[in-house]
Amino acid sequence: MELIKRRGALIVVSAPSGAGKTTLCHEVRQLVPDLFYSVSYTTRAPRPGEVDGKDFHFVTDVEFLAMRDRDEFAEWAEVHGHRYGTPAKALESALERGLDVILDIDTHGARQLRQRYPEAVSIFIMAPSMKELEARLRERKSDAAVEIVRRLNRAREEISAWRQYDYLIINRDVKEAVDQLATVIQAERWRTSRLTLKFPDVEVPE
Amino acid sequence: MELIKRRGALIVVSAPSGAGKTTLCHEVRQLVPDLFYSVSYTTRAPRPGEVDGKDFHFVTDVEFLAMRDRDEFAEWAEVHGHRYGTPAKALESALERGLDVILDIDTHGARQLRQRYPEAVSIFIMAPSMKELEARLRERKSDAAVEIVRRLNRAREEISAWRQYDYLIINRDVKEAVDQLATVIQAERWRTSRLTLKFPDVEVPE
Repeated sequence: MELIKRRGALIVVSAPSGAGKTTLCHEVRQLVPDLFYSVSYTTRAPRPGEVDGKDFHFVTDVEFLAMRDRDEFAEWAEVHGHRYGTPAKALESALERGLDVILDIDTHGARQLRQRYPEAVSIFIMAPSMKELEARLRERKSDAAVEIVRRLNRAREEISAWRQYDYLIINRDVKEAVDQLATVIQAERWRTSRLTLKFPDVEVPE
Repeated sequence: MELIKRRGALIVVSAPSGAGKTTLCHEVRQLVPDLFYSVSYTTRAPRPGEVDGKDFHFVTDVEFLAMRDRDEFAEWAEVHGHRYGTPAKALESALERGLDVILDIDTHGARQLRQRYPEAVSIFIMAPSMKELEARLRERKSDAAVEIVRRLNRAREEISAWRQYDYLIINRDVKEAVDQLATVIQAERWRTSRLTLKFPDVEVPE
């Protein structure tokens, strides 16, 4: 008989562009079992190699707005002219089944999620410096110079929100940062606020 | 230059007698660097092998009450007819220096500490069942039968406080439980509430 019943944790991960968030979220899923990765809806075009239903659900603006109007998004945002939304139902059903849900999301979306799910665990990933962040953005050959400047300005804005997060992880080294992310997720699995105890031989209050 | 300045975390560990708390707290100090172990004052007699100033500061009742009246204890309690107190000054200075302080304390003391230090991180250690707890208490040859019954009753009372703690760890296996304790302590090191950021090249709000 299981001693403990556990509700999943909603893990919200934000970072300025170039801090390595996407890589970290991908790597941590290899490391930590029972992580549910929510697939977002977006109106932007797929990048080369992206798979519909796996990386994103790619939808038209009309489809997106209809979902939003039916209140089907846990959060949604417009970033660089494109809309992104997290489907609420899939997320809530995973939490109910005791799976931790990891969401890779911007600071505005994180704010919406914290309001809707106050028990969410939020983690901010930071590059070791702005210089380093800029260097990482320049390495991405796909982005134009004007886009890099736009992302850097946005990065400064996003960094200023770090204190609204529960945890801060500095991504100096991918392996180290992934370990830290995994450590936070593991520790949160023993949070009493998400546990129900079923002791075989002693009365334990709820 | 250090990117981050960190205030230490006050880690409060409670458990019913026989759950293995003392062993776990000892083992975790071998595993996690920079842990400050607060040495309590007590009016009880030293057990064989216990060293004054290392296991406890052994004091008389008169000395203890004088310290209490000078408000020198972060918390104090009377357990089984003996007084135990945690010196506030050593604890606060360690936190200030960025050291995590681990306190091995009963549920009443934990309540006092949470009131005085609301940012404290509290962890409750549980045995897998009452049967197991009783078996562990009986293994301790030093305790008389009447003492075992008293401890079991007290254990039931203590267990009922588990929800007031931030984390719950079930001690099925010492190695596993020590790892879980270490994981929680490590994760708490990245809590934004105890961090100050000093970025070299970007303005970051406090």
